[in-house]
Amino acid sequence: MVASGARKAAIIGGGVIGGGWAARFALMGWNVRIHDTDRDAERRINAILGRARASMPGLWDVALPDEGKISFHDDLAEAVEGAEWIQESVPERLDLKHEVYAAIQSACTETAIIGSSSSGFRPSELAEGAARPGQIVVAHPFNPVYLIPLVEIVTGPGTGEARIERIRSTLRDIGAHPLFLRREIDAHIADRLLAAVWREALWLVSDGVADTAEIDDAIRYGFGLRWAQMGLFETYRIAGGEAGMRQLLTRLGASPNLPWSKLTDMPELTDELVETIASQSDAQSGRHSTAELEQIRDANLVSILRGLKTRDWGAGRLLNATDRRIDGAPKGLDALSLTGPLPTGARAVPLDWSDINGHMTEHRYLQAFGDATDRFLGLVGCDAEYIACGHSYFTAETHIRHLAEIRAGALIEIDTQLLLAEGRRMQVFHRMWESSRLVATAEHMLVHVDLGSRRAVAPPADLKERLDKVAAAHAHLPRPEGAGAAVGRPLERKAETDAGPEAG
Amino acid sequence: MVASGARKAAIIGGGVIGGGWAARFALMGWNVRIHDTDRDAERRINAILGRARASMPGLWDVALPDEGKISFHDDLAEAVEGAEWIQESVPERLDLKHEVYAAIQSACTETAIIGSSSSGFRPSELAEGAARPGQIVVAHPFNPVYLIPLVEIVTGPGTGEARIERIRSTLRDIGAHPLFLRREIDAHIADRLLAAVWREALWLVSDGVADTAEIDDAIRYGFGLRWAQMGLFETYRIAGGEAGMRQLLTRLGASPNLPWSKLTDMPELTDELVETIASQSDAQSGRHSTAELEQIRDANLVSILRGLKTRDWGAGRLLNATDRRIDGAPKGLDALSLTGPLPTGARAVPLDWSDINGHMTEHRYLQAFGDATDRFLGLVGCDAEYIACGHSYFTAETHIRHLAEIRAGALIEIDTQLLLAEGRRMQVFHRMWESSRLVATAEHMLVHVDLGSRRAVAPPADLKERLDKVAAAHAHLPRPEGAGAAVGRPLERKAETDAGPEAG
Repeated sequence: MVASGARKAAIIGGGVIGGGWAARFALMGWNVRIHDTDRDAERRINAILGRARASMPGLWDVALPDEGKISFHDDLAEAVEGAEWIQESVPERLDLKHEVYAAIQSACTETAIIGSSSSGFRPSELAEGAARPGQIVVAHPFNPVYLIPLVEIVTGPGTGEARIERIRSTLRDIGAHPLFLRREIDAHIADRLLAAVWREALWLVSDGVADTAEIDDAIRYGFGLRWAQMGLFETYRIAGGEAGMRQLLTRLGASPNLPWSKLTDMPELTDELVETIASQSDAQSGRHSTAELEQIRDANLVSILRGLKTRDWGAGRLLNATDRRIDGAPKGLDALSLTGPLPTGARAVPLDWSDINGHMTEHRYLQAFGDATDRFLGLVGCDAEYIACGHSYFTAETHIRHLAEIRAGALIEIDTQLLLAEGRRMQVFHRMWESSRLVATAEHMLVHVDLGSRRAVAPPADLKERLDKVAAAHAHLPRPEGAGAAVGRPLERKAETDAGPEAG
Repeated sequence: MVASGARKAAIIGGGVIGGGWAARFALMGWNVRIHDTDRDAERRINAILGRARASMPGLWDVALPDEGKISFHDDLAEAVEGAEWIQESVPERLDLKHEVYAAIQSACTETAIIGSSSSGFRPSELAEGAARPGQIVVAHPFNPVYLIPLVEIVTGPGTGEARIERIRSTLRDIGAHPLFLRREIDAHIADRLLAAVWREALWLVSDGVADTAEIDDAIRYGFGLRWAQMGLFETYRIAGGEAGMRQLLTRLGASPNLPWSKLTDMPELTDELVETIASQSDAQSGRHSTAELEQIRDANLVSILRGLKTRDWGAGRLLNATDRRIDGAPKGLDALSLTGPLPTGARAVPLDWSDINGHMTEHRYLQAFGDATDRFLGLVGCDAEYIACGHSYFTAETHIRHLAEIRAGALIEIDTQLLLAEGRRMQVFHRMWESSRLVATAEHMLVHVDLGSRRAVAPPADLKERLDKVAAAHAHLPRPEGAGAAVGRPLERKAETDAGPEAG
């Protein structure tokens, strides 16, 4: 359902960038009218909308407003009518842009903002000859527009304070980060930095030093990880040690032969420039000591790296390969003693599993227990290969008891007792230990399913045989304390005195 | 305990970089001997080791080998004796490095690798006048060395295949990513790219276009997020559309007036260079279509952004601010009807909450339920401010039932019924819905605790009063189906036919 009072945006030019703008506005509840002279624009934009719907709303932990209405218009005037924000994303030809602005301005309101996605032109060039030059500003986004928050804003002398405030509030409304340039310049800020890297990368390929994959690896296994969370100056400030930026710059200034200064012309590091940079860096980062910045950086990097690990991509793929190397060849059931619970996990509690006070977060217990379940299943033959063939176990029910707190960095171990393996059902009991301290338990009921029909079915004979073997051995073990418990009973007294971690 | 057969590394120069190398080797189980002429090195390195111990082991989902033994040696010869890998990280002065190599080579074995952390010198410069030049290679890491996997390796003509293989296997052993340069060049690859950005950034500050914070924001809200997962070329390949790199380069080649080409000299995009880049890019990324790369990129970006969200930093901090803006002012209990369960959550299932098949992962159910618990607690007055004053509720026990599968992107809603609020204990029952379909339930026992003593204590009168009010109203509601259940009973039949999501 579209809210009747939805705000209106017009998108002129429906390529990858225009489509990304359309998606960001629409998913934030704006009605979006799209104009493109290309008949294929609608198909392209629908593909972009599909990707945006799959990825963008989940960035937030609250429900977004109802998606706005998206419509396509052959008539530009119809598209911009009544729009608060009109975003131009046509090809980078100044004459074409001038034509488009003339058409827009003859049909839009005087209060509408006309943003240009131009990656290079200055507002003064864009607004040349326009009926109302102050209405036209650069609003330069980054692909994919529906996920990357940065929008570079370059205004002109005629923009005016009221319009600047509306630009700021509109971009915040759609979850973007407006970066206002202090003055106009070719290619704004980010594309100047990107152009510098691009030029250097072309030389590296051209000179045969590295190929495209190697250059990309130099970025995504290296400084690219840092730049997702701190930029150039804050990162270097840390490298300067406790004295920070001033020390680093003075050191650099004293070493004119450092390799990077050999490569290209650069501004002379005069005392004045050193002072400018150092005091800007103090204003930017001075509220944190270097040690604090190091801790922040490390926690950010762990989050990013572990996020990439779940995607099995880039630096995360490397980490997964190292997991397998450390773990060694998968152990068969025959190599293990069945006279006690099976070892199903040993790991350090990652930094990104902890809350602001360093205690392990509630749901990460279940993540560790879920990994233990996977490992137990692997031991009895329900491994990746088995699952790829179309069957697996699903968790139907879980009971967790938190018995003690645990901190990031702690080494935890999990063992698993098979309580039941009968027909389609399997019941396991995990215990999580830090040294000899029992910190949590989890009991799970799992059901063997056909991944095609998503229905419960009995496991095949060889899997059942291995399960029966473990079940027969584990039948001799004492029933673990806490097995079969329901929330609040029969462990009421225990739950009350041994407060476990987390939830506040 | 140190494994008796632990491999040995020597670290010469114990600054931030040397200390980072020491941490990476030691936490991967190597014995590490450190030599530095500075008396302060031990203190500095212990601080680095502390940060590394807190962050590095948790990158992996398996336990690392036992930490190696770390020792400090005034005598360089003693430090390098028997070491397989000797890493030099002394200041960037060629004469000093030559002195250090002479001392190392007079004491180390002939098979040891001598790696230099030099960010600029070529191996041919480093090995000048050395007794065994082939033994010295560039092994250039990135700060923090214990988290960033990239190590640029530059070998010389005398390195030899066997040594190259040992370099590769050693770096893999410590979880690093060796990037071998095809030939030596000042500043290797990454520092050339960084130098280009640094030069451009200095101009931007010097010309008053942006300050250091703005330049950093242009990176960390923008292309820095992309570069944590794909580099320059793979990112631009996507921008080229289905035709990929060739189309992009041809388009760029045909537009010599694009802003980035105005700024600096760059190689001419000859047909030959276009072909070189395009075919390298095919080799690098050609196994994925553009649409696939877009999906991979989006999922990676969601992981990175949501990781930063948990750290409340950079682009993640912006997302949290948007959450609060969308959510509006916190609602008091008085604004809500108590005639039914309370609404405690509405959100889209994020892409990074799903497995490879797009189904929501087991532990993410508990994350959503945990958020619902937090929201319920906020409604009754146990909010961030209350917690900051020293009391909170901890979860002691949890029971989850998975009733149906759910996919990334789906909109879920959670409501909460208060089953019990008595003394220090509180029992809640959450239901998770996708439209009218019940997908999961969670029952929690929580205990009110003093955050100082970590002991259970009764809640204060005002909190108790609000809880009693909800409890009295909810006492009229029917007891939810599934409340009070233990794993496997009394819901055995249900669990078996309605297989819930996940765990395989």
